[in-house]
Amino acid sequence: MITVLKRNATEEQRNNLIKWLEDQGVSVHVSVGESVTILGLVGDTSNIDMDMLKLLDIVDDVKRISESYKKSNRKFHPEDTIIEVPSKASSDGVTKIGGGHFSVIAGPCSVESEEQIVEVAKRVKAAGASMLRGGAFKPRTSPYAFQGMRAEGLELLSIAKKETGLPIVSEIMNENHLELFEDVDIIQVGARNMQNFELLKALGHVDKPILLKRGLANTLEELLMSAEYIMAGGNENVILCERGIRTFEHRTRNTLDLSAIPALHEMTHLPVIVDPSHSTGRADYVKPMAMAAVACGADGLMIEVHNNPACALCDGAQSLTPDQFDDVMDKVGKMRDIL
Amino acid sequence: MITVLKRNATEEQRNNLIKWLEDQGVSVHVSVGESVTILGLVGDTSNIDMDMLKLLDIVDDVKRISESYKKSNRKFHPEDTIIEVPSKASSDGVTKIGGGHFSVIAGPCSVESEEQIVEVAKRVKAAGASMLRGGAFKPRTSPYAFQGMRAEGLELLSIAKKETGLPIVSEIMNENHLELFEDVDIIQVGARNMQNFELLKALGHVDKPILLKRGLANTLEELLMSAEYIMAGGNENVILCERGIRTFEHRTRNTLDLSAIPALHEMTHLPVIVDPSHSTGRADYVKPMAMAAVACGADGLMIEVHNNPACALCDGAQSLTPDQFDDVMDKVGKMRDIL
Amino acid sequence: MITVLKRNATEEQRNNLIKWLEDQGVSVHVSVGESVTILGLVGDTSNIDMDMLKLLDIVDDVKRISESYKKSNRKFHPEDTIIEVPSKASSDGVTKIGGGHFSVIAGPCSVESEEQIVEVAKRVKAAGASMLRGGAFKPRTSPYAFQGMRAEGLELLSIAKKETGLPIVSEIMNENHLELFEDVDIIQVGARNMQNFELLKALGHVDKPILLKRGLANTLEELLMSAEYIMAGGNENVILCERGIRTFEHRTRNTLDLSAIPALHEMTHLPVIVDPSHSTGRADYVKPMAMAAVACGADGLMIEVHNNPACALCDGAQSLTPDQFDDVMDKVGKMRDIL
Amino acid sequence: MITVLKRNATEEQRNNLIKWLEDQGVSVHVSVGESVTILGLVGDTSNIDMDMLKLLDIVDDVKRISESYKKSNRKFHPEDTIIEVPSKASSDGVTKIGGGHFSVIAGPCSVESEEQIVEVAKRVKAAGASMLRGGAFKPRTSPYAFQGMRAEGLELLSIAKKETGLPIVSEIMNENHLELFEDVDIIQVGARNMQNFELLKALGHVDKPILLKRGLANTLEELLMSAEYIMAGGNENVILCERGIRTFEHRTRNTLDLSAIPALHEMTHLPVIVDPSHSTGRADYVKPMAMAAVACGADGLMIEVHNNPACALCDGAQSLTPDQFDDVMDKVGKMRDIL
Repeated sequence: MITVLKRNATEEQRNNLIKWLEDQGVSVHVSVGESVTILGLVGDTSNIDMDMLKLLDIVDDVKRISESYKKSNRKFHPEDTIIEVPSKASSDGVTKIGGGHFSVIAGPCSVESEEQIVEVAKRVKAAGASMLRGGAFKPRTSPYAFQGMRAEGLELLSIAKKETGLPIVSEIMNENHLELFEDVDIIQVGARNMQNFELLKALGHVDKPILLKRGLANTLEELLMSAEYIMAGGNENVILCERGIRTFEHRTRNTLDLSAIPALHEMTHLPVIVDPSHSTGRADYVKPMAMAAVACGADGLMIEVHNNPACALCDGAQSLTPDQFDDVMDKVGKMRDIL
Repeated sequence: MITVLKRNATEEQRNNLIKWLEDQGVSVHVSVGESVTILGLVGDTSNIDMDMLKLLDIVDDVKRISESYKKSNRKFHPEDTIIEVPSKASSDGVTKIGGGHFSVIAGPCSVESEEQIVEVAKRVKAAGASMLRGGAFKPRTSPYAFQGMRAEGLELLSIAKKETGLPIVSEIMNENHLELFEDVDIIQVGARNMQNFELLKALGHVDKPILLKRGLANTLEELLMSAEYIMAGGNENVILCERGIRTFEHRTRNTLDLSAIPALHEMTHLPVIVDPSHSTGRADYVKPMAMAAVACGADGLMIEVHNNPACALCDGAQSLTPDQFDDVMDKVGKMRDIL
Repeated sequence: MITVLKRNATEEQRNNLIKWLEDQGVSVHVSVGESVTILGLVGDTSNIDMDMLKLLDIVDDVKRISESYKKSNRKFHPEDTIIEVPSKASSDGVTKIGGGHFSVIAGPCSVESEEQIVEVAKRVKAAGASMLRGGAFKPRTSPYAFQGMRAEGLELLSIAKKETGLPIVSEIMNENHLELFEDVDIIQVGARNMQNFELLKALGHVDKPILLKRGLANTLEELLMSAEYIMAGGNENVILCERGIRTFEHRTRNTLDLSAIPALHEMTHLPVIVDPSHSTGRADYVKPMAMAAVACGADGLMIEVHNNPACALCDGAQSLTPDQFDDVMDKVGKMRDIL
Repeated sequence: MITVLKRNATEEQRNNLIKWLEDQGVSVHVSVGESVTILGLVGDTSNIDMDMLKLLDIVDDVKRISESYKKSNRKFHPEDTIIEVPSKASSDGVTKIGGGHFSVIAGPCSVESEEQIVEVAKRVKAAGASMLRGGAFKPRTSPYAFQGMRAEGLELLSIAKKETGLPIVSEIMNENHLELFEDVDIIQVGARNMQNFELLKALGHVDKPILLKRGLANTLEELLMSAEYIMAGGNENVILCERGIRTFEHRTRNTLDLSAIPALHEMTHLPVIVDPSHSTGRADYVKPMAMAAVACGADGLMIEVHNNPACALCDGAQSLTPDQFDDVMDKVGKMRDIL
């Protein structure tokens, strides 16, 4: 941590501050310049309150040097984390994400009926997806919109899992629902709940991988701090998901931030996947953005597929048909071959 | 709702679409132009899925005309809502916000000790605040940061309430904690939980006013949709709070959007208050921004006051001292007089 | 400037870097910590390329400590700059902005006719405005939209100046037009040209105050760097203008960033005014935002007034009628009295 | 254009408005609903001022249906525009961009010396680049930073063109410099000048392709409106360039908006290229983002290459070495093969 003193700080004030800082257990290195004096704080600075320091009359600025995320930080864990999910659809009984293992999660935005989810599951499996997604609890902006089939939706997902062997992924909105998620293989935290810290804490004690979506207006560092909430509780199996951020541009629903892929791979050892469906909000942009995500190193994709997009109860305009999904998987496969 | 058809739509396609729309219970008015044909959908269009319509081959664009917020909409409820909070500190036993009633909520970011909260309560009451705020459950970006005194903090707030008569305001992060909030007069929903819909639904069944803060990246319409979640459950006592949005500018923590005040007053009948402390993140900007908020019509203010800002466990840099708060209240009072 | 070295930097690498830095004329203070080594660069670091330093294998991060704006920086020029504009409408022959002198610039978005501009000039003068604005060269998003009366518009402004004595303010889009601006008292640089550096350089050699509007997506520091371009050329009479930034919120045309007022007053000695008309894009929000701007310390206002808003050739929806402007000036005057 | 009337509009007011609109030459189709009346304006609505309409007491909202860009609009020009640049380095004497022709423009941020630019030119040509870029006039945020070699830089580019046959691309900042650009093959307009309309108008009369970079905070529609300024003057050879937008995320310099590629391909027939160097600001992210751009359909790339990045006078941290560029071109080539 760096503390920059104002020009008018007296020597006595400076010495008092240094003494106080040393009492907090950090060592202080002083650099006196013509126009500025800098204190370099070295050691464990986690007890030093930056905001409080900034308040002091003689302090001009305080800057943190080292990252505040620890367990997810690649500096302290250089190897890629590989997350394993038991899968009856896989020859070796397991599906892997991260560390070179690529995985596609596909399925409808909302579970609507047994027939729908089972049919979609079969189609996406045939196309090469390794997991099935389906929303049972749906976070909707409007209280008057369809809120998902809830518990019943999770039961239908289990049926589709039995029929196809595909592990299932579904979003949780409340830790009180955790017992309903027993058969769910990966629990998803949606963008709007990325900083629902009570939920994150609860998921830190769960023995399942968590798929954590980046919030609409959250930085990559905040995404890692939220992963840190889960990991600090003991659950280190976190998959990060870039799904678009909110900007001034309104041609697409959100702005897919693909630079986040190389950036996150540099910052953290956790796997990173991309959701081209929610980010663009348009079925015709899903294929190009899926391919771009693969090209820049994503560890997986999350794609909405619906057997009848024009009738989907929500988010229809961004879902692919199974035929369109076949085409995406074909192109993605070819691209993976050359990478 | 307006549906714009593509130039190449055949008459048969058009008639099929019109028939389908009429089957959904809306009447359709057709405007045929040289380069475009427009369908005006009139009646109850809430069952029409805009996204699905956009997907159709012959549809170029779909635009919604009327707002999706109903209970909070000023069009259907032209008079200002006035929210009443029982108060032993008030001569008539009640504090009011909205409809010309101005109210200041002040107190520390976090409750730290009985001595602290009681002293601050006395000081802000003396300065003219009508309610006491204090954080017991704290949403912090980092799991390693101080998380608040939780249940104990709420008990200390109750003590301060007894000592001063001031109604108390505190943030809830989880509906499971609701029973701990029995003595709290206004329950606050923080910016990060503005779209925690499960929490909002639970608060719709509570018999206390809810102070709903705007999310960092949420539009005013989304803020009203979240108010709508609470109101749809039966609790129509919602106070809206502008507290800064996330932009590219980093001189201030967030960008306080004061245009939101006249805009919200136009859109809704609910009272709107402003938090100049969290939005700017700097004690020295609180006074000018508080005055600006009053000048443009805010129904109240929420201000952080701490008896020893330099030692606050969190957010110290943005808290005022009681003396600084006295000065703000003095200037705010003078400004209220001329408005 | 602070340079943070990577953990794996050898002593030899470190010494080589320090030697190189010292060769550039700065002194280097070294702080060795357990997990990080910090080099504090003190002296004139303007020749050190931060980006290049960051590129070095052993460097983890580089942070600048001192601001890059010099002439506009309040640290080196603590007193407020007061800008004087000759004015025949003023009893002492001069209008002042800054350092406690408050000034309102009002007039139509575009000059349309002699009758229009003279009538508006008379009305805004009567209401208390101290300068007249009017667009002659108009930057329009569309090449098919009205581009202003150009040279003829400037001539009409001169006529209005003769009739009322009010100094005139008009926007320049190209330094080749400078000779047409001889009778203009303050030359305005619009938001879209805030980083048109060739234009700024040319205005550095002009002997008139420059009104520099903040760009739609520019930080306050960038605004000061653009002022710096003008001041570096010798023209130190720069007035800054906050006119809204681009965010995700679309209820208002832009988001008026009023925190910029106290922030700029802290960063710079230059006067700061606010344009509530362009920022909100709506006549009915102009009054509340004008009052808010005054309340938080703006040195002046720039307000659009049109004698027949419903027929304005551009930006009509945001213009006030002269009667509405009378009302704003009345309220602003009362507020100035208590400040 | 759609005009939505307020509920309280009387029949007389409505008829007056309709008559006035018809006088402007548009036909009006009326849809009367329970809660809203809609006027559909059909025909040439370019003379109708939306802002003025919105101002009327009885009008609730006005929405434009058809796009305001014409010459760049794919609807009126379905085939891809292919831009041809004479090239002595190409076997058929010409380099093409657009309509399936892929082109890489590479070179240093700034021209620094004959030796540098000639060496880089040879290396990027050998790697497969089809054009050479080099900055002579440099837009820098600070007036104290290196501003480019200006006219001399253009002369050095010409030497490199003679040596290698590669067409050259360089940025213009002022139409007064146009005669210096005679030997330049493609004139670049930088992000900060995207809405420097006087410059755009001047380039509309130039007989060379224009490379138009998207502004930091400009929408895709605004980008097309700026292209429209050039095209309206007669120069229809415009290449669009996505180079990152400004958001709250600061891990990368800007946020590269790759969804802009499929979006622009849908909106316009003009070629679209991507600059992964400026957008990310980091050499190590250039390769993944270049590959992603190719994967989602970019018609070309613009990449910074410097023979000694650690010594570049500006933007060093984002430049590739020639060896790194070889690697990027190799991977891009393989990816192009499978697309």
